[in-house]
Amino acid sequence: MEQVERIGISLEKDLLALFDKMIEKQGYPNRSEAVRDLIRGQLSSEQLLKPSTKAFATVTFVYNHHATKLMEKLTTLQHSHLLQIICSTHVHLDHDYCMEIIVLKGPAGKISKTADYILSQKGIKLGKISLFPLKIH
Amino acid sequence: MEQVERIGISLEKDLLALFDKMIEKQGYPNRSEAVRDLIRGQLSSEQLLKPSTKAFATVTFVYNHHATKLMEKLTTLQHSHLLQIICSTHVHLDHDYCMEIIVLKGPAGKISKTADYILSQKGIKLGKISLFPLKIH
Amino acid sequence: MEQVERIGISLEKDLLALFDKMIEKQGYPNRSEAVRDLIRGQLSSEQLLKPSTKAFATVTFVYNHHATKLMEKLTTLQHSHLLQIICSTHVHLDHDYCMEIIVLKGPAGKISKTADYILSQKGIKLGKISLFPLKIH
Amino acid sequence: MEQVERIGISLEKDLLALFDKMIEKQGYPNRSEAVRDLIRGQLSSEQLLKPSTKAFATVTFVYNHHATKLMEKLTTLQHSHLLQIICSTHVHLDHDYCMEIIVLKGPAGKISKTADYILSQKGIKLGKISLFPLKIH
Repeated sequence: MEQVERIGISLEKDLLALFDKMIEKQGYPNRSEAVRDLIRGQLSSEQLLKPSTKAFATVTFVYNHHATKLMEKLTTLQHSHLLQIICSTHVHLDHDYCMEIIVLKGPAGKISKTADYILSQKGIKLGKISLFPLKIH
Repeated sequence: MEQVERIGISLEKDLLALFDKMIEKQGYPNRSEAVRDLIRGQLSSEQLLKPSTKAFATVTFVYNHHATKLMEKLTTLQHSHLLQIICSTHVHLDHDYCMEIIVLKGPAGKISKTADYILSQKGIKLGKISLFPLKIH
Repeated sequence: MEQVERIGISLEKDLLALFDKMIEKQGYPNRSEAVRDLIRGQLSSEQLLKPSTKAFATVTFVYNHHATKLMEKLTTLQHSHLLQIICSTHVHLDHDYCMEIIVLKGPAGKISKTADYILSQKGIKLGKISLFPLKIH
Repeated sequence: MEQVERIGISLEKDLLALFDKMIEKQGYPNRSEAVRDLIRGQLSSEQLLKPSTKAFATVTFVYNHHATKLMEKLTTLQHSHLLQIICSTHVHLDHDYCMEIIVLKGPAGKISKTADYILSQKGIKLGKISLFPLKIH
């Protein structure tokens, strides 16, 4: 069970009213949860600036499954990075396009490099990476 | 079969050398593929500024599976947005934490709203969204 | 004089310790100031998604002052947007390059458009825009 | 005089049409200029990931000039970083708020640190940094 502390924060009435309105719209149950998320977000951005930070990531990309040999290449690629690729999900978008989501684990720098390599393959149309530090607070 | 055109681009020798070095590092097979990706990236950012743009997204988040009722809430949530949630993948990170990847489809604005709502739930530690336009070029 | 309220926030001991370390490194005098900045940052991002939000911006760009006619064009441009351009600062970087910082005021959408136009001019090498909502909390 | 090379890029007809439309809207005189800007943008992002990259930046922030001692603090701060701060511009926004734009020069990592320190001062409401590599291509 994690220990919880309670701190006091002072802020302008005006700013507080706008904050309350925004987090209600986003669906937060209370202010503490919203402030914790803001803090965690900034902490994780800081951590991920260091290439050695242990991290995991989802790499999402859209590709044309008619592209010659792309699928074999992607499978080979996933196996050659065996230690880092945890799993992948395949989504059928339409007649031509598929979406693939790959979950990677490893140092932030190495993950970014692997993601770059994946996204640079011919036939891959668009791609994005969501990177998280492994150590969660 | 898509029709391909060939255009000429003039750029400084110096800039070209650096570009060639960067795309080789990233793994691109040729310059055309790299330029196409830059163009597609900017086009999709433009499109997604409009809330009505048809889009799909992966929402990735890390949560503590001991958090009371979070799992039921997430399942309910996924069913109440039935039209938009295509599939989800669950990754076991360690004793306490899980990662969930949800694939959504719908207008960009509505997807962002749903993602905000998911990420604001208590017990969810970190989360990110990767948004793509449905129409791919 | 603005009215200030004091609210209580509960968060994990661990998360609080990391937050304290980060804000000390950044130079914050206390937690309230840091939390207020996180809240203001997210509020302003939200506001600026609407093109009609009254905003101001700095557009910073680097250009080659040998580029034929660029300087006259920029001056003309600044005068044709008279209502929006408040002032500009010029920095001499080296023999070839200058940096120009232009301060604009107007609806967020129109500012972005003007910035796009400036940054697309021949001879401008790199450019960035910092956008702020006019209404500050 | 910089040497210019001409390269050929092949891309789908559809993608080319959208690209042409986007760059016309942005104001580009031709495709080469737009592609060069995309390449330069990605190159500079890459360079700035290394903290030792020589860089310059504009730090823009909004502050309440009634905030006790903020102005003296900012002046002291600017003088204590004498080697890095090139110039600053002051804009009067309204009765309460001012905008200050500071131009810094130095290693990317040190600039970010100084910007963090400035933006963490009490009385500063919002702030953003635009970072550029010193070496321009």
